[in-house]
Amino acid sequence: MQQYFVKGEAKSSVVIEDKDTVKHMFQVMRLAKDDQVVLVFDDGIKRLARVADENDHRFELIEELPDQVELPVNVTIACGFPKGDKLEFLAQKTTELGASQLWAFPADWSVVKWDSKKIAKKVEKLQKIALGAAEQSKRNRVPEVNLFASKAEFLAMLNQFDTILIAYEESAKAGERATLVEALSKSSNGDQILFIFGPEGGLSPDEVAQFETKGAHKVGLGPRIMRAETAPLYALSVVSFALEMQQ
Amino acid sequence: MQQYFVKGEAKSSVVIEDKDTVKHMFQVMRLAKDDQVVLVFDDGIKRLARVADENDHRFELIEELPDQVELPVNVTIACGFPKGDKLEFLAQKTTELGASQLWAFPADWSVVKWDSKKIAKKVEKLQKIALGAAEQSKRNRVPEVNLFASKAEFLAMLNQFDTILIAYEESAKAGERATLVEALSKSSNGDQILFIFGPEGGLSPDEVAQFETKGAHKVGLGPRIMRAETAPLYALSVVSFALEMQQ
Repeated sequence: MQQYFVKGEAKSSVVIEDKDTVKHMFQVMRLAKDDQVVLVFDDGIKRLARVADENDHRFELIEELPDQVELPVNVTIACGFPKGDKLEFLAQKTTELGASQLWAFPADWSVVKWDSKKIAKKVEKLQKIALGAAEQSKRNRVPEVNLFASKAEFLAMLNQFDTILIAYEESAKAGERATLVEALSKSSNGDQILFIFGPEGGLSPDEVAQFETKGAHKVGLGPRIMRAETAPLYALSVVSFALEMQQ
Repeated sequence: MQQYFVKGEAKSSVVIEDKDTVKHMFQVMRLAKDDQVVLVFDDGIKRLARVADENDHRFELIEELPDQVELPVNVTIACGFPKGDKLEFLAQKTTELGASQLWAFPADWSVVKWDSKKIAKKVEKLQKIALGAAEQSKRNRVPEVNLFASKAEFLAMLNQFDTILIAYEESAKAGERATLVEALSKSSNGDQILFIFGPEGGLSPDEVAQFETKGAHKVGLGPRIMRAETAPLYALSVVSFALEMQQ
């Protein structure tokens, strides 16, 4: 069944205001009176709802649904600004794979330079992709997108995490395999976990050292070299496997 | 260091014949006498080599390298023919993530219809993408690409596998989480494991039943609904985690 996110608190009778959502509901899907959809408000609970008035775009809630598909931990994926449309790709794929947040920051070896105007536009676009992917993958929440104008701003956010893991190619090459397994086995439900990934050229030794002073640990993600946009998918998949499938 | 696959057996002195490889070596990378690269022949062993004669495209082998980055099991990813360029995407990403083979077949609910001419062209293109991705991710082997003209041909290949797992959305929705974990924990090094994925519309109940008569098991891949091209990446990532990282 089609699912839509609706900003605000759940009300027994709700009028959809968001233009894109209205368009998808009544033009693309051609919903008519009494058709049912799933609505997800800010509390992340899925609710069955039926069209009460298609002209006013008004729905009435029928019942709460028990579906809860969020990862047991909150995973933030943070990438050095990559080239091209890799963040667009990541906004879709990390949402499907359960990320809580998608962040990016200007890494030392990032080739692209984005000013605040570009960043604002990019965030809007990425947030829209994440919304669409969250509806399609039936998430209970939409990942939050945040692009930092400076690395200092990104560094200032690191103290909110329980665990910070740096995906580091040199660790992978050196055959480092224990840190990720150990970090996941020690995690508790509700933990805030941050994975940091470099841009195409990787992270500089300087910035890795900076992250380490904030308590970050370098991890290998298997012995093969993955592209910048593939490694976050590996990380999210294994979090799911370790904390959802193996439990 | 740049890595290239060379068809045939390793010889102490080797002339590169493949045009694309020659072009990349001597035009893109501008290799000159005594420059070093890694060459990988059919035996999958990486060997350090140096340019002996740049005009003849001749290399001399220096030494064998111990790098072995292949998954301990052979994983074949088989998908129902998907729309658009999703197989191109999968050829790149499944190679990075360690697949042995990428297969596709006309599933009941595949929208696209490809004749033998189209299939031959597509295989050639996909094999080239897999080659490039295998060089970039420093694999010891290039995954083999195979597209089947009929489902019967695909079904006839299933008896060569030790384990066949069907990624089935209904299993995921029903919260099925044990089968994948159990299958991986029971696997032995060198096993042939096949994962079957549907096209965008999923697998039909009929074909799922056909696969099951061949010994396949339905598995859930976590509670979130993934797109057709995302689920194979999840599968390969967790094979790596279970059999490389957690061992």
